[in-house]
Amino acid sequence: MNPLILHADHVVCMTEDHQVLTNGAVLVGAGGRIEAVGEAPAVIAANPGVPVKRLADRLLMPGLVNAHTHMPMTLLRAMADDLRLDVWLMGYMMPTEREFVNPDFCRLGTQLSCAEMIRGGTTLFADMYYFEADIAEATAQAGLRAVCGESIMKFPAPDADSYEQSLAYTRQFIQDWLGHPLIVPSVAPHAPYTCTDDILQACADLALEFDVPLQTHILETRQEADDSWNEFEKKVVNRVADLGVFRAKTIAAHCVHVDSEDIRLLHKHGVAVAHNPTSNLKLASGIAPVKEMLERGVRLSVGTDGAASNNDLDMFEEMRLAALLVKGATFDPTALPAREALAMATRWGAEALHLGGLTGSLEVGKRADLIVVDRSPLHNAPHFERDPNSVYSQVVYATQAADVQHVMVNGQWLMRDRTLLTLDEAAIREQAADYARQIDRFLIAREGNVLNKLVAIGGLHQEESFEIQVKARLDDETL
Amino acid sequence: MNPLILHADHVVCMTEDHQVLTNGAVLVGAGGRIEAVGEAPAVIAANPGVPVKRLADRLLMPGLVNAHTHMPMTLLRAMADDLRLDVWLMGYMMPTEREFVNPDFCRLGTQLSCAEMIRGGTTLFADMYYFEADIAEATAQAGLRAVCGESIMKFPAPDADSYEQSLAYTRQFIQDWLGHPLIVPSVAPHAPYTCTDDILQACADLALEFDVPLQTHILETRQEADDSWNEFEKKVVNRVADLGVFRAKTIAAHCVHVDSEDIRLLHKHGVAVAHNPTSNLKLASGIAPVKEMLERGVRLSVGTDGAASNNDLDMFEEMRLAALLVKGATFDPTALPAREALAMATRWGAEALHLGGLTGSLEVGKRADLIVVDRSPLHNAPHFERDPNSVYSQVVYATQAADVQHVMVNGQWLMRDRTLLTLDEAAIREQAADYARQIDRFLIAREGNVLNKLVAIGGLHQEESFEIQVKARLDDETL
Repeated sequence: MNPLILHADHVVCMTEDHQVLTNGAVLVGAGGRIEAVGEAPAVIAANPGVPVKRLADRLLMPGLVNAHTHMPMTLLRAMADDLRLDVWLMGYMMPTEREFVNPDFCRLGTQLSCAEMIRGGTTLFADMYYFEADIAEATAQAGLRAVCGESIMKFPAPDADSYEQSLAYTRQFIQDWLGHPLIVPSVAPHAPYTCTDDILQACADLALEFDVPLQTHILETRQEADDSWNEFEKKVVNRVADLGVFRAKTIAAHCVHVDSEDIRLLHKHGVAVAHNPTSNLKLASGIAPVKEMLERGVRLSVGTDGAASNNDLDMFEEMRLAALLVKGATFDPTALPAREALAMATRWGAEALHLGGLTGSLEVGKRADLIVVDRSPLHNAPHFERDPNSVYSQVVYATQAADVQHVMVNGQWLMRDRTLLTLDEAAIREQAADYARQIDRFLIAREGNVLNKLVAIGGLHQEESFEIQVKARLDDETL
Repeated sequence: MNPLILHADHVVCMTEDHQVLTNGAVLVGAGGRIEAVGEAPAVIAANPGVPVKRLADRLLMPGLVNAHTHMPMTLLRAMADDLRLDVWLMGYMMPTEREFVNPDFCRLGTQLSCAEMIRGGTTLFADMYYFEADIAEATAQAGLRAVCGESIMKFPAPDADSYEQSLAYTRQFIQDWLGHPLIVPSVAPHAPYTCTDDILQACADLALEFDVPLQTHILETRQEADDSWNEFEKKVVNRVADLGVFRAKTIAAHCVHVDSEDIRLLHKHGVAVAHNPTSNLKLASGIAPVKEMLERGVRLSVGTDGAASNNDLDMFEEMRLAALLVKGATFDPTALPAREALAMATRWGAEALHLGGLTGSLEVGKRADLIVVDRSPLHNAPHFERDPNSVYSQVVYATQAADVQHVMVNGQWLMRDRTLLTLDEAAIREQAADYARQIDRFLIAREGNVLNKLVAIGGLHQEESFEIQVKARLDDETL
């Protein structure tokens, strides 16, 4: 693209010094780099001949960062909800994934998720799933920025019979994608409870070898804390730290059940946390101690988790919930004010994914990953100019995903005037509908059978879910 | 209007028997009454000559019910957020309301709120504020349905020097509006802690005299529970019950800090509860015991509260948060499943406002208060047809306010193809901006002064807020 000046009524830079410009402008260079940020008259005068796109009653800000998700799971959205965790996992999610997850499913699901993310103003996400090379390719084609990691665990996965296979896949994936302008490959051991010590160490070594981030789930459920103590005679975070995993640039999703000691360790090792409030509530995992993590200086970010447990990828809603939940849970209305919540979903998110030098704020030298928000819908009215915090309040507490009008990543427009430029939504919708029909047929055939057996197991409690999950994985005949 | 058949791919009736029609139709009679609901071919064949509006890939459902709000407060949206409750109330909300709340402010704020509500699919709300006749008039002009109550309390209000004045206003208001096709007048003692025993009794008597609903706030904060015990040697709910307030058709907003005994009493007296999860989190009031109230059979509904503490009037978001929060707070992923959450925001909401015979579901004999939701945006994809719960999941966990395409109240279209038909949004936006400028100027002049004095008070704690609030009310000079 040619250089372009974006001239907006409000530019919310999300820099460390909280720069907010009224009547501001951003110069995007030919290479997709931000070349200037400042008062509009000055930027325009200093760059004669560069076309100016006037964004009246619009707000220009960095794109949102979804720090934890599983892209293809949008294809399972609303397939099965409001169930006991073990019923949901073993009765629906796992069998459906075993049956349907293949490269085509992952590409289509990624396209569906990319379309939703672009419409909702997300420009960067972190994903861990299966067939990750297909996810990376679909993402790069859609033009979004992402940190991608192939899930690695001790059980067979939809695309691997053993963890050795997944590790080898990851090594090849890293070699293929390292240095890509949009995709950052990473290593993704699924979780401490689904990985042996050997797997966790091998993952850390691989991440260190290529200096790529390591993504994992940590302490999503209380059960995980109890099991770790029983199985390893160690707390989860201690075990992972002792294994040297945190030598890698680690992003830990969830951290719902971390205690003060865990939080100190996460902070000491510079581990970034991806907070997933909607998913944690919906699956009844609990409420993460965000206030204490913030106070201890832990690097925090926000994610939607997969759409099967959310059920959308709306980062406006997610940062809003993060900002609200911590207040109610701690009886402190000043906890995580709007400005910090927005930082969590932009600059802090990029920093958590070790991409803080590249994106997450509007400043000279960073890539042009930015969104234009239409402030004219009345749920954004009125605007108070007295207090610079009002603009953060507006964005965090009232703005909707549908207010996003234009989206640019790496200097390329992905959406203009609410029209997607890199994805064919009608085709995606049709193909997704086809999968839904197939999955419906599959589940109708299976459902009666499985649910009868779950009921027959009788005293099945939520606390037993992990053991039963393992059994189901290892021997499908238990169901 | 002339009779019309609405023919949609999915009709979610929200009847007690959970009727969901694929390829369904609703016949709206000339008088705005629902005359038929059923399979599209049958309804169309039985009504030859009646025009059919085809709604492909659309979902037809009852409008949403916002069971608790303060309409004009949208004009204070994002004016001041993330503050300690006493600073927020006394430093910002109360002085601004004292200065600006007048009939013009209330009409404009109501228009702003009505515009947002219609766009977000809300067709009925319950309001309590000041100059309630102006609010009712603006609402009736916008074409929305509402239960309206003038706030009554022991302190001077923006439109009354004494509670006697507010009571007289209410009597006149009821006489003027009783029997209106859209507006139901009500009696609205602000809260037990802002009302004397005499006021509460007089309010109940007035509500009973005209057989209109009574709205009030109950146990929004923990402080209220403590204060009641100290001041009256009675728990709040016991005191209100003993005064005979619950003889009236009572809607109690918040009920965050009700215990099991309170819940039993609310149930015994048939009191309806308006749950306000966003506001309760944002103001750090806490998390209402929704699961226990549901289990005890308390009549539940959902509200946004005023936009100063939300900051929007988005009922999709509100019912979603209600469904999510109860799960996380009780570690039960099956609590308040999507179908019940949607009922809370439709039929149960109408029943809570004592309008269940008139609206809240799509059934023959009720008024045509309905919305058409566009399911084509990709965050609503794919659709699973196997399980009837999937459609509720979709609406509750993924649908956005912006997906609402058409809105009808009482048989009248208020929005068609996302164009508002009864309100001038550009004019509202401009007038709201003018108020924001005035309020900014007022607060700039006042802010330094007030905040300095608040700081000077020194050991000001949240626990002292009520006392200080009272002082501030009675003697402006304390600030």
